Order: sequence, then structure tokens, then C-alpha cells
Amino acid sequence: MSGNSFGKLFTLTSAGESHGEALLGIVDGCPPGMKLTEEDLQGDLDLRKPGSSRHTTQRRESDAIKIVSGTFEGVTTGTPIGLLIENTDQRPRDYTNIANSFRPGHADFTYQQKYGLRDYRGGGRSSARETAIRVAAGGIAKKYLNEKYGIEIHGYLSQLGPITFDNFDWAEVHNNPFFCPDSSKVPELEKYMDNLRKSGDSIGARINIVASNMITGLGEPIFDRLDADIAHAMMSINAVKGIEIGSGFEVVNQKGSDHRDPITPEGFTSNNSGGILGGISSGQDLLVSIALKPTSSIRLPTDSIDKKGHSTEISTTGRHDPCVGIRATPIAEAMLAITLMDHALRHRAQNADVKSETPSIPASKQ
Amino acid sequence: MSGNSFGKLFTLTSAGESHGEALLGIVDGCPPGMKLTEEDLQGDLDLRKPGSSRHTTQRRESDAIKIVSGTFEGVTTGTPIGLLIENTDQRPRDYTNIANSFRPGHADFTYQQKYGLRDYRGGGRSSARETAIRVAAGGIAKKYLNEKYGIEIHGYLSQLGPITFDNFDWAEVHNNPFFCPDSSKVPELEKYMDNLRKSGDSIGARINIVASNMITGLGEPIFDRLDADIAHAMMSINAVKGIEIGSGFEVVNQKGSDHRDPITPEGFTSNNSGGILGGISSGQDLLVSIALKPTSSIRLPTDSIDKKGHSTEISTTGRHDPCVGIRATPIAEAMLAITLMDHALRHRAQNADVKSETPSIPASKQ
Amino acid sequence: MSGNSFGKLFTLTSAGESHGEALLGIVDGCPPGMKLTEEDLQGDLDLRKPGSSRHTTQRRESDAIKIVSGTFEGVTTGTPIGLLIENTDQRPRDYTNIANSFRPGHADFTYQQKYGLRDYRGGGRSSARETAIRVAAGGIAKKYLNEKYGIEIHGYLSQLGPITFDNFDWAEVHNNPFFCPDSSKVPELEKYMDNLRKSGDSIGARINIVASNMITGLGEPIFDRLDADIAHAMMSINAVKGIEIGSGFEVVNQKGSDHRDPITPEGFTSNNSGGILGGISSGQDLLVSIALKPTSSIRLPTDSIDKKGHSTEISTTGRHDPCVGIRATPIAEAMLAITLMDHALRHRAQNADVKSETPSIPASKQ
Amino acid sequence: MSGNSFGKLFTLTSAGESHGEALLGIVDGCPPGMKLTEEDLQGDLDLRKPGSSRHTTQRRESDAIKIVSGTFEGVTTGTPIGLLIENTDQRPRDYTNIANSFRPGHADFTYQQKYGLRDYRGGGRSSARETAIRVAAGGIAKKYLNEKYGIEIHGYLSQLGPITFDNFDWAEVHNNPFFCPDSSKVPELEKYMDNLRKSGDSIGARINIVASNMITGLGEPIFDRLDADIAHAMMSINAVKGIEIGSGFEVVNQKGSDHRDPITPEGFTSNNSGGILGGISSGQDLLVSIALKPTSSIRLPTDSIDKKGHSTEISTTGRHDPCVGIRATPIAEAMLAITLMDHALRHRAQNADVKSETPSIPASKQ
Repeated sequence: MSGNSFGKLFTLTSAGESHGEALLGIVDGCPPGMKLTEEDLQGDLDLRKPGSSRHTTQRRESDAIKIVSGTFEGVTTGTPIGLLIENTDQRPRDYTNIANSFRPGHADFTYQQKYGLRDYRGGGRSSARETAIRVAAGGIAKKYLNEKYGIEIHGYLSQLGPITFDNFDWAEVHNNPFFCPDSSKVPELEKYMDNLRKSGDSIGARINIVASNMITGLGEPIFDRLDADIAHAMMSINAVKGIEIGSGFEVVNQKGSDHRDPITPEGFTSNNSGGILGGISSGQDLLVSIALKPTSSIRLPTDSIDKKGHSTEISTTGRHDPCVGIRATPIAEAMLAITLMDHALRHRAQNADVKSETPSIPASKQ
Repeated sequence: MSGNSFGKLFTLTSAGESHGEALLGIVDGCPPGMKLTEEDLQGDLDLRKPGSSRHTTQRRESDAIKIVSGTFEGVTTGTPIGLLIENTDQRPRDYTNIANSFRPGHADFTYQQKYGLRDYRGGGRSSARETAIRVAAGGIAKKYLNEKYGIEIHGYLSQLGPITFDNFDWAEVHNNPFFCPDSSKVPELEKYMDNLRKSGDSIGARINIVASNMITGLGEPIFDRLDADIAHAMMSINAVKGIEIGSGFEVVNQKGSDHRDPITPEGFTSNNSGGILGGISSGQDLLVSIALKPTSSIRLPTDSIDKKGHSTEISTTGRHDPCVGIRATPIAEAMLAITLMDHALRHRAQNADVKSETPSIPASKQ
Repeated sequence: MSGNSFGKLFTLTSAGESHGEALLGIVDGCPPGMKLTEEDLQGDLDLRKPGSSRHTTQRRESDAIKIVSGTFEGVTTGTPIGLLIENTDQRPRDYTNIANSFRPGHADFTYQQKYGLRDYRGGGRSSARETAIRVAAGGIAKKYLNEKYGIEIHGYLSQLGPITFDNFDWAEVHNNPFFCPDSSKVPELEKYMDNLRKSGDSIGARINIVASNMITGLGEPIFDRLDADIAHAMMSINAVKGIEIGSGFEVVNQKGSDHRDPITPEGFTSNNSGGILGGISSGQDLLVSIALKPTSSIRLPTDSIDKKGHSTEISTTGRHDPCVGIRATPIAEAMLAITLMDHALRHRAQNADVKSETPSIPASKQ
Repeated sequence: MSGNSFGKLFTLTSAGESHGEALLGIVDGCPPGMKLTEEDLQGDLDLRKPGSSRHTTQRRESDAIKIVSGTFEGVTTGTPIGLLIENTDQRPRDYTNIANSFRPGHADFTYQQKYGLRDYRGGGRSSARETAIRVAAGGIAKKYLNEKYGIEIHGYLSQLGPITFDNFDWAEVHNNPFFCPDSSKVPELEKYMDNLRKSGDSIGARINIVASNMITGLGEPIFDRLDADIAHAMMSINAVKGIEIGSGFEVVNQKGSDHRDPITPEGFTSNNSGGILGGISSGQDLLVSIALKPTSSIRLPTDSIDKKGHSTEISTTGRHDPCVGIRATPIAEAMLAITLMDHALRHRAQNADVKSETPSIPASKQ
């Protein structure tokens, strides 16, 4: 059973490969009556796009999104929204040298063993190409969440290799190609990346994603807790190897008296929980952090085997990312948006009539 | 839409609260023809059981599992397996003081806001009580995976508060109440825990889970990658705040040339991937690590609000865990087993006829 | 992948066999805040119960329903509702003569071929026993639909063998063991059934189910149209071989000018559609009709084969229904209720904010 | 929660409207390694196509199918198959007169009430246009079922209005535009249809669909019985109002001694069950019959209301079917194929290792 659908009520189903004709997406369950055009989605797609700077993949796709169904006169109708992105810049010749070998760290070997064959061009379905559709679908979710609830979702680079940041300014995040919130560190990042590119190697990164102006009550215990679905969403992104909510792995050595966030009528006084208690959103900001591994498509050679199981050496040429973490930011935002959208509908389905006697409290006392 | 089912082909549906009459579970999709009796499941339930040592919750449940359907003459029939565990040790009087207030760090506040009411006794559905059913269902999965494929699933404590371990011996893990693999550290753990209990506080922990003798090909890209479903499964466990696969957050500062695991005909030469490439199992050991937060049910008082939104102070009495991490080990094993079982069936559904020209390679070259 | 769950938002998962210890059900997704106790469900269970009259199965089960979770102080909490019915009257000795043969018309042969083994006692999972859980779950749905929307669901016998009815009085339906709306025909039914029982044979029946005070907008095109899900629900009941909505098979020879139901501000002027247009409820009464085949468990012998594939003759003794149609009425009501409940939540999930400029119109102009 | 996906393991997700840019389909879960090109699918699409004869809709779509992902070098890869059909013949001007009124018998009124707005051009999503995608997906399923199991799926017209058929020849079914198996009746059908077209009215039809060379064991009791899923699939087709399996509604007046199909080592001696026992396929031919209502888009005027709820009169002009039943045949075949494909994978997922001691028996003794 393939897993190319995400979400139970707001569902994205996706198809498309690196070197196929087009990427398709179908978004089912979007409420009717919301204004929606391609302009609403193209922005995030451009942020994700390869070729935007010398620091990312040199493949030049326009990633022009087309909405082929689900709207009428620029408004959603409640019928499924069809998304189409044509692949325009495919260069199969870059990959023929690895048609018969497996690139370590990639999905080549596992796809071959699972399916018995694989489209080796650019990684086929395992390529990050498909994330373009996720970003488009995430744009629909972001718009609804923002217009209906005021929820905002923003990601940023919190660490690249050994480089961490001292200053934080949301306004800087989109001012550089790294989604870095600290403008003072940008020259250091550029220099680090240039050296990496010259050496033919790659590095990992950490991305943080925040959802603010959150509503309370999202999450469906016990298995579809909000954090469980967020973890699922994030880990489904290529290259993610770890995920944390709130204090994350710091909790291992945290006392209960320090960890728990006291509640006052003016709001919570801390946010170690990351905005989720018992799997349900508390109204506090959602704090998510993910680790992205370094790309394995690098110019440095390494040992591998070929399709017959014999030793071979392999290195990759062509258009690759020395740090996939840079481009994961809009993808992670999109996945968080889709997850929250799905949960907003799930919560409404069951609890639309609930009126709690307890008043809302502000997100935090600050 | 509530989320009380987990798994698409091997599905566990669960019901039951801390102070309800009984816990129910229905396991759907188990292949027929496997021997199965209560004895196969009771062992893991006893490992999870409260009251096994002075270091865990002092609630004394027998947790006797009953299989009420789905087997005939001790063999699975392919029909849904009904699981029943009666709650025998409920003491409602322990919780009446918090009927009208919310314990910080717990689900009380969020359940109230989501549903408009809550069963305050012992946390109701948010209590860890329901994990008994998960462990029982996990036992069914473990048995099948082991008998059909030889897969073994084992968890252990890898860190408790500040205490880490230097020696590793699988045989020690079940020799102490901590699931600690280093017998030399057990006295230190006991002393640390005794002090914690006296002080009325709690601490977090890190648990590692390993699946060995893995088969290749499990995982359903792009959204139901094996690691995405594992992350979902783990994060659905109460108190989990972070999850890592393989090198986890270490990848942030790892070079691509170091991270990727080279392949030789004798096997992989490292396992930074944690056994998953492109979301599909490679045959290497699955390496999963989770962070568990410290329990918020501690004797030390803290600020909170009551149901009307007014300030109050709160502390908990009664039977609680100073370190929930200790008991999470069999639960995490169970969730990994259920996830792998589900994926084994999903992979078989689509790819039962696949014969790859590439031979299997050993899990690792050691 | 077993199919023991029904419904996407209001989900019933069921387990239990004819001769197992107990029947289990888990109802997930019920909105919180509704009063619910066993008394609300026992009534329909008693209507379904075997042994209520000489015309139905002579097995005497008390079918006492227990709610083991999901409510607190008699009110639903939004957590999964656990249902338990213990099997009390099992007589394995009645079936040993068919342990090694297959009863024609029954599921014996197909279960053996599908699973490789079967619980032959009373049909195991294929027995109508499991429908008790459906009726209990249907009771929860009926209550919510009625309290929130005023929707009422009622079934009745519309034909038994060759006997049809001339008069119709809803009040008569529960006044006889046949669910027959025409009291003048009851003696004829009794005589027909007595003769049938003496002859050792069985007969089929037609049941109609009506949902009145319907709301508009239920149904999720294109695949989960309301009629598609109703058909699924009805056909999942043992012995159902046909289903019609509205005019059903009469439409084959109906002109378009006759079939379509004109709309006026005072309401629709006919109801050939059966209350569903384009897969969505129109507000008119839902009109559903199902055909139930005659039981194959009869005293008259017939040809069959044994487990080795050799010829044998077979007849059944023990407790059986000469007309299963009689008892299907509460089951069909329950399945319709569960389907409508599920769709009410699905519709609300996506369209809770919709305000149509078109006013409601009455169900029909009469 | 919209319902635009069908199938659990072999899943079709669909998007697209009558007057949108394109129709999209994503088929997920197709096993890898099967040859597949557009040529395999175009044939059935041409059979369904409007404009093929004077007896069907005069809209002239080429319905050229494009496979945009999921295959590599003409073979399925196990990744999702993307289907694209561009709408080429849209004439919005035909529908502007009904932008503000509701056509009785159509989905206009219910879509307006459900979503608050509707794409009135050609029925929008409720139009039969979307069935083109179903037929394409059905072609993939038919190919796999035939190549792997030898299963064949064929539909035919069994009644049109008052006209029934005396002779039956499979070879005739594709020799006339009616899918009529009796060549001697074709002139009568043509005359009847011509008169109907002149009068501006429409008529219903009955279609039978047969799956032969069936395998045993398909169907997932209790809720996803094979017949339940077939009923769901068929009832999801526009205009279907009734469905029968095997003897269908004849069972109402059938004795048990007549209905049950005796089993001998040479095969079953009758097929009243229609190939399904206890919800699982028996190996006998699957016999399905559906009733299609007459189109409500006819030139004869009738009463309706406008969007404000005021009385109006309405009739339709433009391109319409006087008998939609004619074109439903390839759609019904497709839906049966998709259902069987889904169940073949579901059965394999759970029971791939089952070896029954009972030998196969032939489908029937004839």
C-alpha cells in the first residue's frame, strides 16, 4: 500500500518524479468560499525553487503552479483542487553513470530492492522534486489557517553545520538565501558554503518552525496526537533524521519542577511543552525543530555496489545541493500548515458544539 | 475525528480510561494460522506493569490480558482479535482535589478546552493506562515478525537525567527495573531515584530501541516512509518530546562524506542512516531514540488556574512515576513492532511478486 | 487488510464471534457532552435479540450491553466508547457435524479458502452474532442525530416471500414480531412462517428504511456519495443481496419527465430520488430498500463437499432463523444511523461555515 | 471530509470538473513491473467518449489520456501513476440560463446548499465528465487482474426502458453503440432512442457486469465485504439508483432450498449467490446488476426554484444524453475492476501465506 496521501480530512495526494513530465497534486477537503489563485501559492514555490542562489541546486525549474480544478471565479468550491507543475528542466544525461549502481546515502538501493526496478534519473520519486507540490498545497492551508484563525507559520535556519546564531530577527529570514534570522552571520555562512562547494562535500542543518496565534484543542489522542502527526509530517521530508517539540531532547535532563509550564490567568509562564499538552494544542506557540542530514550526492567518491552486487566506486556530478537544509524551510512550513489544517477540520468535525466553561488564556505571560 | 486507531493494514483500535471499567483493544488484519495465547502477551505486560519496583508507580494492577476473539483452538483465524484488560485498582479519591483545577504539564487544561469536560480521575483517557493495550497488541506483532522474518525488537534505557552508560550488555537490560544495559550503573540509578522521590520531583530519560535481523523494503514513500511512521508511533506515546533515527541531531554538523554509509558486497560499513534510506528499510538494524519528559505529577506545588480561570496552586498526591521513562521501554518496543508489522503487510500487498536482480547484502560488515 | 471498521469520522470497530467469549465494539469520534447510558441502547438490542418469538432463532442471549469507557457521569467525553456484550448461550455441540463440511449458501467454504482455517462453531465471525454490536453503536448514532437534528430513522418489513401489504401504520411496526406495518396481515404471516418452519425451509424478505426530518448537505462526492455509503452499509449486513434508493429499479423504465422531482417554494412535489441528488441529501426523506436472501441453514439436505473436496450431503440442525429478514430491521436502522452520523460529522468538518443564499425548503409539498 | 479517493490499497484519487482545465487522477499502490502505456487505457476511454454516436451526448472530447508519472521505460515503478486528461470542448454559454436556478433531478440544489456556491457550468464536479478518469484507472486495474489472474470483466446493457433481450452473444456487445448483446434488437433500440430524442425526454437502463475466471478469497468481512465494496463502487456512479448481486431482489420470494447453490467436486451447480458467499468471492462468476435513472437534463420544462427560493420554470438545452445508461457500461466495468484490484491486494496483504487443505473447485459444473 503506497503512502502518497497525507491528512485525513484535508488530504494531499501527490504524484510525480524528478524526470517525469509533470508533478500532480490533489488537495481534497478544502472548505468552500475561500479566495484562491495561483498568485497565492507561487511565492512559497519561488522560495523553494532550485537555482535561486549560487548556494542551491543549479537546476532551473520555473515551478509555475497551475490550479486546474476546485475553484470557480477565483473561489474554492469545496471540490478537489487539482495542482499541476510541469517539469521543464530535466537533463537525463547527468545520471546515466549511476543507472547501474547505487549512491550510498540515497534511496537507490532500497527502491531497487523494494520495487525490483527504479527510475534512476535524478532519484525518480525519491527526489526532492515532489516537495514542490507539498509547498503548493501548504500554501492553501496557510491561507485558510491565517484568514480563519489568524495562525501564522514561519520557519528559519537555526544551525548550519557548526554555525549557530546569536541574534534573532524575523524580518531577516527572507533577506538572505539561507532563511537565517541573524544578518550578522550571513557572510560567515556564505564563506562556509563556498568552501564546502569547492571541496565537493556537504553539511547538515537544523530548521525551526513556529506556529503563532495558535488555537486550543487541535490534536486527536491517542494515536493522532498533534505532535505525533507533526512528527510524521516532518519525518516524511527527505533528509530529516530527527524532530523535537518544545524542549526536545533537553527534557532528558530536566526536572519536572523546571519542565512543566505554570499557568496563570495572564497566560503560561514558559513554553517547554512547545505548545502541546497531552497531544492537544494549548494555545501557546508551536515550537518544532528538525535535523536535516547532509546530502549524499557529492563529488567525493565512495564505495558502493552495482546492481549485480559487485564492488564499485561512485561519485555524483550534476546539479546538487551542498546543504539541503537551506531549502527545507518552506517545505517544513508547508507540512506544518497541512497538519494543522487537517487537525482544524478534525477538531471541528467532532467538537464544533463544545463550549468550555473555562475562559481562553493568552498564549503566554510576557 | 478521533485518532484511536493506528496502522493501515495491521490496525490497533483502542479504548479505555484510567478509571473506567476496562481497557479494550481490537487488532485487525493479523494473518491467520499463527499460534497465539494470553501467555504470549502477558510477559511484556508484566514488564510495563506499575508496582513492579519501588521506582515506579505504586498502583497495583494485575493487567491480566484476555483474548476474547480472533483465535480458535489457540491459532489466529484472520478475524479481529479482541483484547480485554479489566481495571482492578482504581482509587478515585486520590484525584478529587484536582477535579476543578488543571495540573500544569498535563493534559487537563487541553482536554477541558477541546471537549468541554474531562474525566479528571487519573487523567482519564490521557493517562498512561491505555498503553497496556498497546503493549498487548505489540506482543502479537513481535511474535509474527519474529516467527516469519526473524526480526527482533529490543529497547533499553540510554540515559536517565545526567547519568549515561559506559558498558553495554543486552543481557543486563531485563536484570534491573530500569532496563539499564550497564549493571555497574544500577546502584547510582537507584540512589538518584531515591533522592528524587524524597525531594518530590521527577526527571526525564532517553530510550533507544533497536530492530535487528531487519528485512529490506519496508516503508511507503513519500508520506508513509518507514521513519515517518516510526516517528508518529513514538511521538504518540505520552511524554515523548523528541525522536531520532540513526545519527539523529548529530547530522546537523556532519559532513556528507562522513554521514553516508558506504556499501560493499559484505555489507554496509556504517549505520548513520539508522537502517532507513529514502524512507525504506535497507536491511541494517533500525536505530531509534526517544526523549521522555519528566512527569509533571509531582509533590512540589506550582501555579495554575481553576476551571473558572482563577489563580490557584496545585500539587499532586497519590501514585505517580518519578521517571516515566523507565516504563516506556516496553511501550516503545510495542509501537515499533506494530509499525513494522503494518509495513510488512503494506509492502507485501503491493510488492509480493517483486524479484530484484540485486542480491541481498548482509546488514553490516563487521 | 481486514475490514472491521466502518465510518471515517464516527467509526465503529468491531470484534467477536458466534462462540467466542464476548463481542467488543469501539465507537470513536462521538461528540462530547451527550447523555449516554446502557438504557439508551438496550431497547434496540432487545428488538434484535434471538428468542423473542417463536419465529426467530431459538438461541437465548441476554445481549446485555456494557459501556466500559467513553462516558463520565453518564455523559460522553469525546474519548472512544467501549462496548462489551458477553456471549452467554453458546452450544458448540450443535455444529460439530459440520466441522469438516461446508454448508452451501454460507461462508464456510469461502472462509476456509481465504484464511486456511475457520471457526466452524455457528459460523464464527460470519455469524449474525456480530450485528449486536452494530445495533448498539447505531443506538448512539440515532440518539445524537435525533437530539441535534431531529432526524428519525425507522425500518419496517415491506414484503415477506409472496406476501405484500396494503395498509401502512407506523404504530403497528413494533406491535408484532415481524416489524410489519399492516396489522391485518399478521395472521397470514404467522401461518406462512409456521408452515415454513414445519417444512424445514426458509424464505427471503424486503425491508424498507426511512430517515425523516433529514438535513440537507450530507454526502461527499464523488466516491463517498451518501447513497454509495448507504449501499456499502446495507450490503455489509449478512444476507443482503440488493439495495435500492428511492424508485430503485423502477427507474429502468421511467421517463426523465416522470422521474425528476420538481421543486417549488413549498417543497419537492415527489420523491423518486429517495432524498438524494448528486449523492447529497436534499432534505427529503431518505428512502432505502433492501433484499434479504433466505437462510441457507435449513433442515432440508443438499449436496456439498468436505474439507478434502469429496462429495457429501449436508443439513443443519440447531437454532436457526427461517427468515433472517425479520431481525434485519433494527440492524438496517443501525447501519443507516451510523452512516448518517458519519456524514454529519464529515459535512461539518468541511462546511461548518457555509451560509447558502438559498433558503431551506420543506421536505415535501404535501 | 471530501470523498474523492476510492480504494484502500489500490487507490484512485480524482479531481476535475466539467468545465475546468483538466481532469487529474492519481493511482497509488499499483504493483511494479507491469507494462503500461497510454494505448492500454485509450480503448475504454473511447468507448465511454461522448459523441461516438448520435445516441449519446454531442460534446466532442478527444479524451486523450496522458500518463505523467509512475512508469519508466513503459513499465510501472510502484510509484504513483499520474493521469491527465485535458478538457478541450467546453461551451460555457450553454449553461448560463441555469446559473441562478436549479435543474430538478440534478445536483444543483444540493451542491448549492452544501457548499454555499457551485460551478454551474455543465454540473461542475457533479458532471459525468469525471468518470473519464475512473475509466482510465479501471484500465490499469483490468490489465493487472487479467495478466496476473486471468480475470475478465465485461458489462452489457440488459434492459433499456421497456426493451429486454432474448438472445445473448458477448461478441455483439461492442458491435453497436448500446453495448447490447442481442443484435436482433438493435433496430428497435435505435428507433426507440430516436423517438425519445425527438420528444425531448429520456429513459433509464439496466446494466449487468460480469467478472469471470474469478479467484477465491476476495472480500474483507465484516464491513468491507466484497459485495459491500462493489455496491459502494457502483452507487458512486452518477445516476445509479439500485444494485443487485446474483439473484438480487428475486431472493425476496425465493425459498432457501432453491436459493443456496449446492457444491460438488465438479463445481457449484447454480449461481444465485452471484459469486459471493459471506462477503468473500467463491470463485464463481461475479454477477452484478445496476439500475440507471433517466437523465434529468431534458428539453421538457418543469417547475423549479431559483437561488432566492422563488418559483421558476426550467428546461435544458445543449448537449445531453437521452440515456446515460448507454455510456455507464465502461464506467461500471472500471469501478468493478478497481474494487477487485483493491481487494486482491488487501487479501494478499493478510493471507499471502495461506494454504488451504481444501482443493480449488471449478467455478461451476456446466
